[in-house]
Amino acid sequence: MDLPKPEVLPAGHCYPSLGMQALEAGIASLSVPPSISRDLAMVNEPRGKGGPSAHLEGSKDSLRGSPPGLDPERRERLWEKMKRRMESGDKWFSLEFFPPRMAQGAVNLIALFDQMGAGGPLFIDVTWRPTEDPGSDKETSSMTIASAAVNYCGLETMLHMTCCHQSREAITGHLHKARRLGLKNILALRGDPTGEQWEEEEGGLSYAADLVKHIRSEFGDYFDICVAGYPKGHPDAESFEADLEHLKEKVSAGADFIITQLFFEADTFFLFVKACSEMGITCPILPGIFPIQSYHSLRHLMRLSKLEVPQNIKDVIEPIKDNDDAICNYGIEQAVSLCQKLLASGLVPGLHFYTLNRWKATTEVLKRLGMWTEEPRRPLPWALSAHPKRREEDVRPIFWASRPKSYIYRTRDWDEFPNGRWGNSSSPAFGELKDYYLFYLKSKAPREELLKMWGEQLTGEESVFDVFVHYLSGEPNHHGHPVTCLPWNDEPLAAETSLMKKELLRVNQRGILTINSQPRVNGKPSSDPVVGWGPSGGYVFQKAYLEFFTSRKTVEALLQVLKKYELRVNYHIVDVKGENITNAPELQPNAVTWGIFPGREIIQPTVVDPVSFMFWKDEAFALWVEQWGKLYDEKSPSRLIIQHIHDNYFLVNLVDNEFPLENCLWQVLEDTLELLNRPTSE
Amino acid sequence: MDLPKPEVLPAGHCYPSLGMQALEAGIASLSVPPSISRDLAMVNEPRGKGGPSAHLEGSKDSLRGSPPGLDPERRERLWEKMKRRMESGDKWFSLEFFPPRMAQGAVNLIALFDQMGAGGPLFIDVTWRPTEDPGSDKETSSMTIASAAVNYCGLETMLHMTCCHQSREAITGHLHKARRLGLKNILALRGDPTGEQWEEEEGGLSYAADLVKHIRSEFGDYFDICVAGYPKGHPDAESFEADLEHLKEKVSAGADFIITQLFFEADTFFLFVKACSEMGITCPILPGIFPIQSYHSLRHLMRLSKLEVPQNIKDVIEPIKDNDDAICNYGIEQAVSLCQKLLASGLVPGLHFYTLNRWKATTEVLKRLGMWTEEPRRPLPWALSAHPKRREEDVRPIFWASRPKSYIYRTRDWDEFPNGRWGNSSSPAFGELKDYYLFYLKSKAPREELLKMWGEQLTGEESVFDVFVHYLSGEPNHHGHPVTCLPWNDEPLAAETSLMKKELLRVNQRGILTINSQPRVNGKPSSDPVVGWGPSGGYVFQKAYLEFFTSRKTVEALLQVLKKYELRVNYHIVDVKGENITNAPELQPNAVTWGIFPGREIIQPTVVDPVSFMFWKDEAFALWVEQWGKLYDEKSPSRLIIQHIHDNYFLVNLVDNEFPLENCLWQVLEDTLELLNRPTSE
Repeated sequence: MDLPKPEVLPAGHCYPSLGMQALEAGIASLSVPPSISRDLAMVNEPRGKGGPSAHLEGSKDSLRGSPPGLDPERRERLWEKMKRRMESGDKWFSLEFFPPRMAQGAVNLIALFDQMGAGGPLFIDVTWRPTEDPGSDKETSSMTIASAAVNYCGLETMLHMTCCHQSREAITGHLHKARRLGLKNILALRGDPTGEQWEEEEGGLSYAADLVKHIRSEFGDYFDICVAGYPKGHPDAESFEADLEHLKEKVSAGADFIITQLFFEADTFFLFVKACSEMGITCPILPGIFPIQSYHSLRHLMRLSKLEVPQNIKDVIEPIKDNDDAICNYGIEQAVSLCQKLLASGLVPGLHFYTLNRWKATTEVLKRLGMWTEEPRRPLPWALSAHPKRREEDVRPIFWASRPKSYIYRTRDWDEFPNGRWGNSSSPAFGELKDYYLFYLKSKAPREELLKMWGEQLTGEESVFDVFVHYLSGEPNHHGHPVTCLPWNDEPLAAETSLMKKELLRVNQRGILTINSQPRVNGKPSSDPVVGWGPSGGYVFQKAYLEFFTSRKTVEALLQVLKKYELRVNYHIVDVKGENITNAPELQPNAVTWGIFPGREIIQPTVVDPVSFMFWKDEAFALWVEQWGKLYDEKSPSRLIIQHIHDNYFLVNLVDNEFPLENCLWQVLEDTLELLNRPTSE
Repeated sequence: MDLPKPEVLPAGHCYPSLGMQALEAGIASLSVPPSISRDLAMVNEPRGKGGPSAHLEGSKDSLRGSPPGLDPERRERLWEKMKRRMESGDKWFSLEFFPPRMAQGAVNLIALFDQMGAGGPLFIDVTWRPTEDPGSDKETSSMTIASAAVNYCGLETMLHMTCCHQSREAITGHLHKARRLGLKNILALRGDPTGEQWEEEEGGLSYAADLVKHIRSEFGDYFDICVAGYPKGHPDAESFEADLEHLKEKVSAGADFIITQLFFEADTFFLFVKACSEMGITCPILPGIFPIQSYHSLRHLMRLSKLEVPQNIKDVIEPIKDNDDAICNYGIEQAVSLCQKLLASGLVPGLHFYTLNRWKATTEVLKRLGMWTEEPRRPLPWALSAHPKRREEDVRPIFWASRPKSYIYRTRDWDEFPNGRWGNSSSPAFGELKDYYLFYLKSKAPREELLKMWGEQLTGEESVFDVFVHYLSGEPNHHGHPVTCLPWNDEPLAAETSLMKKELLRVNQRGILTINSQPRVNGKPSSDPVVGWGPSGGYVFQKAYLEFFTSRKTVEALLQVLKKYELRVNYHIVDVKGENITNAPELQPNAVTWGIFPGREIIQPTVVDPVSFMFWKDEAFALWVEQWGKLYDEKSPSRLIIQHIHDNYFLVNLVDNEFPLENCLWQVLEDTLELLNRPTSE
């Protein structure tokens, strides 16, 4: 009864393919991207003994593309993204930043990354500041800033690196560190000599081309490498032609693409591209755009880059040199007009912007060009990290929803990240909180600001309730200051939270201090502007979630009410010392956000996990004291009030499992408050 | 700015627990089973430097219970299941079978396992037939039958094993093989001497107690071990007391529980249990129940076990000894009455039935006792395997929905089984089809039956369409025979398929030969009798699915129609040679069945996977020839018709991704058929 083996056809056998026939007859529209057709061709081959069947055996994974629902770009390297964009004619932009000088500047720069990252740059880059220990762990080092952009802001990031004044070993060390931190792209530069004369470091590298060769020889294809092009020739080069020779050498050494020095006239770029092409340089060349923002920054930059401002621009700005606004507006006009010419030429796949760490001019230029992506589609409900080891990550506990950077920081040492299901992961524990507050998670607002928002002097627990109420309502507090952040939420209210504003206000007034919540969603389109996420054509769902601090007395009433909801509501209640009570079945995670998409497996990006909650509660309680209590003197009544809450309140989370029905959590709280108000019979 | 570490409390510190307080005050109902409270206590401890935090680190998994949505029993060993049932007072039953003598008997016995497994036995057991090579790979061996029960029928299974006439090495070899096949429970017996005198095998084991010791010493705790108890003493024992000593020895050697020899009077059992208890035997003792089924089988069994039938029973049956029905009815009455007395005594945690491989009497007794679980709740939409390595398995391709045993067989060599997500698994390829038809997947019906159903003589493709139509309609065919199975479906139509009967009939008449389908389901309760599965309180969902064979001409029209549905319908079309065409994005699996449950992660038990489809199509096409074509002579027209379909038809699967909307697949097919009917303009 043995089965006849399917005939093994020789490779390239001409069995008439239905696909081909159909295409010829014009009846089949194969909407599969080229990379898929390649994969399909593999499946396509008839399998025989020891043939492609064995081949399939080991490579079931490699046959597939990106994980379900995620942006395909999440898995691609930078040059692959560029290639795909060029093939589809989709123009991109990129943004250059320099590292700050002060720690507070770093906090602000990271906020700027988030802000400008929302516009959809293909990548950002961070310059190398040789004089400030650029490869160190200092908060302000080039390395630290670039790493923050990748890890905490989820941006494809390129780190500049110069070979000037550094030994080969030092450079190799920096590159190893960059790789460890998740950086995948290097802009290789010679760097400027600091003395009068260029002096080669003993055993070091003299030219950018040497650096490119060094990276390729030590790290193979791991890094994508960019090099700088000088549309008017490098100021130190013997001639324009000699400089082009250097550029060609850099590209031949292994560079993937070129970014040009800034220039002001489209023809400068066109001539340069033409010259490059004649030299046989075929990689993408990105024009460097500098929107003039002020007279002084322009002069400074010109001096540094030994460039001349064209006379026609000088003529405009000299008369208005003391009017920053006017110069900035002119800079925008000038940049928009330059970019339009560049884009119209068809020679430019993307635009590179020298932002000078300012958002306004660049954002405005991009908006006018129609390249700024307003409200980009969220691939998942939470902010991704761009570290390659997090490529497959698609589940997180909901607790860190307002503190994604904290979550990324506390899980940075994990080797694997949950994909598909949370409970399957055998991830290590969450990192200690220790040095965590030092830098990334400091509030953007200074102490005086916070005191104005959260109260110079607290008069009791009620005055704390008030702060929550004003944060939620958006109304200014009694001293006329709006409350724009809380220790648990460094950002204003999420759009979906507004859907429940009325109910939230009511319970916060009564001392149920909410720090996280989501409404139930029973199958809204994935394109929904408020609760949507993921690829189009799908449906998203949520279970109603509520997380709050509240007093022991309220918890006791709540537990009594919850008896009625035992089968419907999952709860987890814990105090700072770790006393906890939950009805989570077998400590299983509860999926509270999920999406169903065409042709994909199910994605459930957030869970309420009773195990992780015990780690989160340490952080949530600590924020009371670290961010709020410590604003006040040690023995002050205000400090004692916060300390009292920290020591005695409970952190509670509630999930309503009945997502198709009206959210019952408000009723649970209503009943709880009513029970509290009832005169005790004893 | 370092955080103060949470105070490390000494173990057993008396911080007032809210849970405790609440319980004392009677306000908190902690509905967590005992095993959970234990886990919670672990999370409960405050964590400090190097303390329980480090402890949690490695054991995040072990903190949790069973995977989401699955029966907790799926992870437990047999004695744990017994313990849990005893704690909850939930009485169980178990069923004993013996291996068949013929291959066709094995096919029937496996069908009996499925049938009686549906009633919800805690376990079944398979006797050891020393004279028939019981540990071999023969289709009828004890080992093969027990393995089939575990792997293909998903039953907790116990294999009998005797030490008589076997060397230690042979016994160890059998045990290794049993473990490899997924068996976890052994009933350790001495076995009966075959000659006149008991002769010890050289280097063998003399008594069941030695066998128990041997299993424990070689396999530690891997196996749960049962031993036999003789309520009237073993016939070879010197005395009742001496036999109890032997029993005590077997239990002390490491047996977990006892099953008794059959008996007819409740007092026999009560005296035995009392005597055991006085001897200090404390493990569970399961009474062996034998419903008398015929005069001859009773006499045979009595002779074998050297037992006497009580006079009062003899008095009833002797006069009716030639009336099998009457004896069987009496046997049922007698067994029900015996069981009722046993259960009422409170001494019996469960009942063990000697079925003699017949379903009727035992099923009837269990039904009258109210212990037969009619339509048990499905933990997943498909039939589980009880092999321990499949414990976490919870995703399968939909293609094998009607052939779960085939799926289990073809994946039997995998080391890991997909859990949560299909695409994450790096499982090896599907097993070759080769020897697969030899045994497990043969149709239960004999050749003559099949010819009556599928046609003694086929007259063309239409006569094949007819067979599909009659299978779906349930109406007898033109020769008056109902079509109760097809090569792809060895069982009658699934309940949910009936939901689409009208549409299915219509398209099959036109040569769209459906072999698998499911309706869309947009959030029905998990308790739904037709489409429900999984724990209670949840919701289940499905995307509409259709799989069929059809001609090239129909496929060409279909492809044209599908252009209109490009974003809504995923398709995969393939012929026997592997030519294939699909719009599955990046060859990702498409989840087509999923469930949302309280306090659980999402479960998506079936996917349409384009990679697995290429393996399934080999099987689906082969079934045409192997099961249908080969019924006819090699050169006969009937054989040629089937061969033509096999060689030229396409296998198509369609998924409608819009599960909230009316299923569009019928419209797709309607349009296709209309297009086919339209006169061609060319």
